[in-house]
Amino acid sequence: MSDLKVVADPGTHEIVLTRSFDAPRDQVFKAFTDPDAVASWWGFRDSKTEVAELEARPGGRWRFVGRDSNGGEHAFHGVYHDAVAPERIVYTFEYEGMPGHVLLETITFEERDGRTHMTDSSVFQSVADRDGMLASGMESGAAESMDQLDDYLAKG
Amino acid sequence: MSDLKVVADPGTHEIVLTRSFDAPRDQVFKAFTDPDAVASWWGFRDSKTEVAELEARPGGRWRFVGRDSNGGEHAFHGVYHDAVAPERIVYTFEYEGMPGHVLLETITFEERDGRTHMTDSSVFQSVADRDGMLASGMESGAAESMDQLDDYLAKG
Repeated sequence: MSDLKVVADPGTHEIVLTRSFDAPRDQVFKAFTDPDAVASWWGFRDSKTEVAELEARPGGRWRFVGRDSNGGEHAFHGVYHDAVAPERIVYTFEYEGMPGHVLLETITFEERDGRTHMTDSSVFQSVADRDGMLASGMESGAAESMDQLDDYLAKG
Repeated sequence: MSDLKVVADPGTHEIVLTRSFDAPRDQVFKAFTDPDAVASWWGFRDSKTEVAELEARPGGRWRFVGRDSNGGEHAFHGVYHDAVAPERIVYTFEYEGMPGHVLLETITFEERDGRTHMTDSSVFQSVADRDGMLASGMESGAAESMDQLDDYLAKG
């Protein structure tokens, strides 16, 4: 059962997602930082994700390309500021359809009662950029991604 | 003459500095991305800056160490998301005295009437982090840095 929460206070630069997973945090951290794992859950359900680059270390780059069933292609890239196993990942994020617009994303993992609690906070260069991301359907994309991650984790 | 402006609206994640320089933007961009140049102007006037790393390209890392006349040492580091000569630099920034607290800084340069107009926008992971940076004397540090950059640019 999904417990995804999305908080985006009006007039701020921030979106915060929280979600829990029925898996230890080592496994969840690995699902976010291993290229093969990411390819199997990241993005919309109606889309295949190619992980073109993913090097989870300070200065490492990442680039994901999503291809949907209508032939649409959406690419994203950024650099890792930090990847501290199994607790925290900090990276930049840019959608190549809106070049030059960058956000800083911080994901932390806490383990409680055998479950992993994720907090995923993004800060945008402007409130307008943040509002644009909300309007783009980011919330449903995140929900689909997180459900696919649940399925991936259930397979062990 | 300094025209430094600092805007930090209450309750937001952002600080925006604007400043102009009497130099073409090629020269200003180089002053921000060349290790020897940065060492000669970055930081407080009462401090020497060692540029331990500076590779201005996506995924490149930077690390600056400031040493003041009382023996105090303050180090900072991050990674470049982008460095697009001569118009834009986007990087992460972490003060090693507060590990784990990261901001995203975007600096843009525009040339008008022979002067370069800089906009330097930082977004923090939280409003509390932003307020902490303001309380730390960041504004006077920025003013001293910018004045030293003026002096550096005047030498050509």
